[in-house]
Amino acid sequence: MEFNKFYNIYRERVNHELEIFLNKKLRLAGKVNGDSKKLVSIVKEYTLRGKSKRIRALLVILGYKGYSGKGDKEIIKAAAGIELIHSYLLMHDDIIDQDDLRRNKPAVHKHFEEIGEKKFSQEKATHFGASMAIVAGDVANVLGYELLTNSKFPDHFKNKAIKQLNELLFFVTLGEGLDVYSGLSPRIDSKTIEKIYEYKTARYTFEQPLKIGALLAGAKEETLTPLSKFSIPLGIAFQIQDDALGLYGSEKSIGKPVGSDLKEGKKTLVISLALKRAFARDKKIIKGALGRKDLTLAEIKKIRNIIKTTGAYDYCQRLTGNYIRQSKEKLDSFNNFNIEVKKLLSNLADFIGQRTH
Amino acid sequence: MEFNKFYNIYRERVNHELEIFLNKKLRLAGKVNGDSKKLVSIVKEYTLRGKSKRIRALLVILGYKGYSGKGDKEIIKAAAGIELIHSYLLMHDDIIDQDDLRRNKPAVHKHFEEIGEKKFSQEKATHFGASMAIVAGDVANVLGYELLTNSKFPDHFKNKAIKQLNELLFFVTLGEGLDVYSGLSPRIDSKTIEKIYEYKTARYTFEQPLKIGALLAGAKEETLTPLSKFSIPLGIAFQIQDDALGLYGSEKSIGKPVGSDLKEGKKTLVISLALKRAFARDKKIIKGALGRKDLTLAEIKKIRNIIKTTGAYDYCQRLTGNYIRQSKEKLDSFNNFNIEVKKLLSNLADFIGQRTH
Repeated sequence: MEFNKFYNIYRERVNHELEIFLNKKLRLAGKVNGDSKKLVSIVKEYTLRGKSKRIRALLVILGYKGYSGKGDKEIIKAAAGIELIHSYLLMHDDIIDQDDLRRNKPAVHKHFEEIGEKKFSQEKATHFGASMAIVAGDVANVLGYELLTNSKFPDHFKNKAIKQLNELLFFVTLGEGLDVYSGLSPRIDSKTIEKIYEYKTARYTFEQPLKIGALLAGAKEETLTPLSKFSIPLGIAFQIQDDALGLYGSEKSIGKPVGSDLKEGKKTLVISLALKRAFARDKKIIKGALGRKDLTLAEIKKIRNIIKTTGAYDYCQRLTGNYIRQSKEKLDSFNNFNIEVKKLLSNLADFIGQRTH
Repeated sequence: MEFNKFYNIYRERVNHELEIFLNKKLRLAGKVNGDSKKLVSIVKEYTLRGKSKRIRALLVILGYKGYSGKGDKEIIKAAAGIELIHSYLLMHDDIIDQDDLRRNKPAVHKHFEEIGEKKFSQEKATHFGASMAIVAGDVANVLGYELLTNSKFPDHFKNKAIKQLNELLFFVTLGEGLDVYSGLSPRIDSKTIEKIYEYKTARYTFEQPLKIGALLAGAKEETLTPLSKFSIPLGIAFQIQDDALGLYGSEKSIGKPVGSDLKEGKKTLVISLALKRAFARDKKIIKGALGRKDLTLAEIKKIRNIIKTTGAYDYCQRLTGNYIRQSKEKLDSFNNFNIEVKKLLSNLADFIGQRTH
């Protein structure tokens, strides 16, 4: 099947599964208490917001089909579960990064903050919003586990997949912690940035979902190394690209304000490289902008230009290209892997290299 | 075996298992990056702080032994996992309730806030502390899942236990959300308070751990209703008692400041009943105190006296006694349940009725 067609069909089916599952949970929460539904209903709305790429779900499905997993129904449930896990991490990440927009709509903490503002002082409303978002994330997490645990695969396959999900979450939360903690030190080296990309994105978004799908099809753990070698460089490429889009894309296409990494003072690879390469005066401008919540679009555009002038932007584009090539080369070492699915993975790598949102 | 002896032996063994497991995870985190260890190390320190009653672990073990589960090693792992899940929920709960002390030491968000204060403004340090505590909770959660998933029970028993853990977490997080959300409305009825007690404590702390243990021993889900009927009233009794201790105990014995429910403006059952019964003047005093972070011990003592005068305190003590009796009566309907373990459950109920911390 052609990649775009495959992608669109399965994205739709995962969305459909999420909707059905979350409607069921809404009814269950309603039985506890009317207010309890508010949490599940924000989990549903947030998870089903437009623009979600469902890359993790896609990789679960590709891992499963690559190892000749049969049927669609159950793997779509497991894939939908991984998307709920993603919602959970995003909700917490939004609180931590103080991102108020996600996919063009208020983040969960912002949503509840606005409700709280009608009753409380601003300070209390902010705390109320963050509290509800912590809990909403926790709800999304357990619902993700539930979808995977309740999918109808042989118990020993499923158990391995749950172990893999545990591993995924251990490393992604460590990566998140590292990310928060690195905010303490003004100088963060590119080695630490790479570690964050590896754990927060590459392993989490690419390697582990692919492995979870493979394990659900009955693949042996010890045969999965080639999957890691393919997906880790692909994930790093994705993150470098994602940072660039966050800075050079438009708010509409990326679903959140342009330059939010700058405003949060986050040292992405491109910013860190630009700082290393820029002349003293330009370095001062970038440093002065980092962490300033009130940056104007004009100021952001100025920084964009500086970053281009240093060559850091072009360097990152080339780096992305290299990682994608490196990733695709590893496909040759996949054994006992469906040849059609291998082609789809290769198309996915191209898609990531060319994406604009 | 005598209850106290059984309790002390298994509490020690669960603590030992937690220590060994978390040391392993510390080494693993160290391989990612030195800073990553900070998260696992606070998870370890927090989980192993003194004064933990390990009631949930104990119930997992009793449920397992009640259904004639063999051996100790694996069930202790699963029980330790449930305690890590508890750490996770407490860490998030501490942020939400803005509780700065837990078991006589700084809560996780406070611990990191103090580190952040050396580098940041107060506002930023507070946010840094909360962010790290969100992530530390998330780490504790996945480690709890891991201990259960990796315990060596037959896969189909284990998957049922994981399903039960999912259910536990779905309802406890809904309960937590209900608790936060109820802060929006100044009037919270005792029916909502009861729902919160049922979901946040009784099902979470008592019913579900007991069921998880039973399922790991191979018990059939459909035979577990008597376990619920025993454990839900016991859990409600525990919570009513816990509220009373929080108000009438000493900081040293309860491990957190006396009257913190009052300071947080939390309407516990005893406070809600006192408000209903008190004379207008006293009602005004209680209402004026609710939510005041700067309440002095003298003021708290005054409120204690008012609550005693209304009879709300005595009523709650009687209610606790009734629930415990109700709970113990249900033990008669346990079938195919080890008679010695049944006795231990009866002792546990007495222990809860009499506890002073």
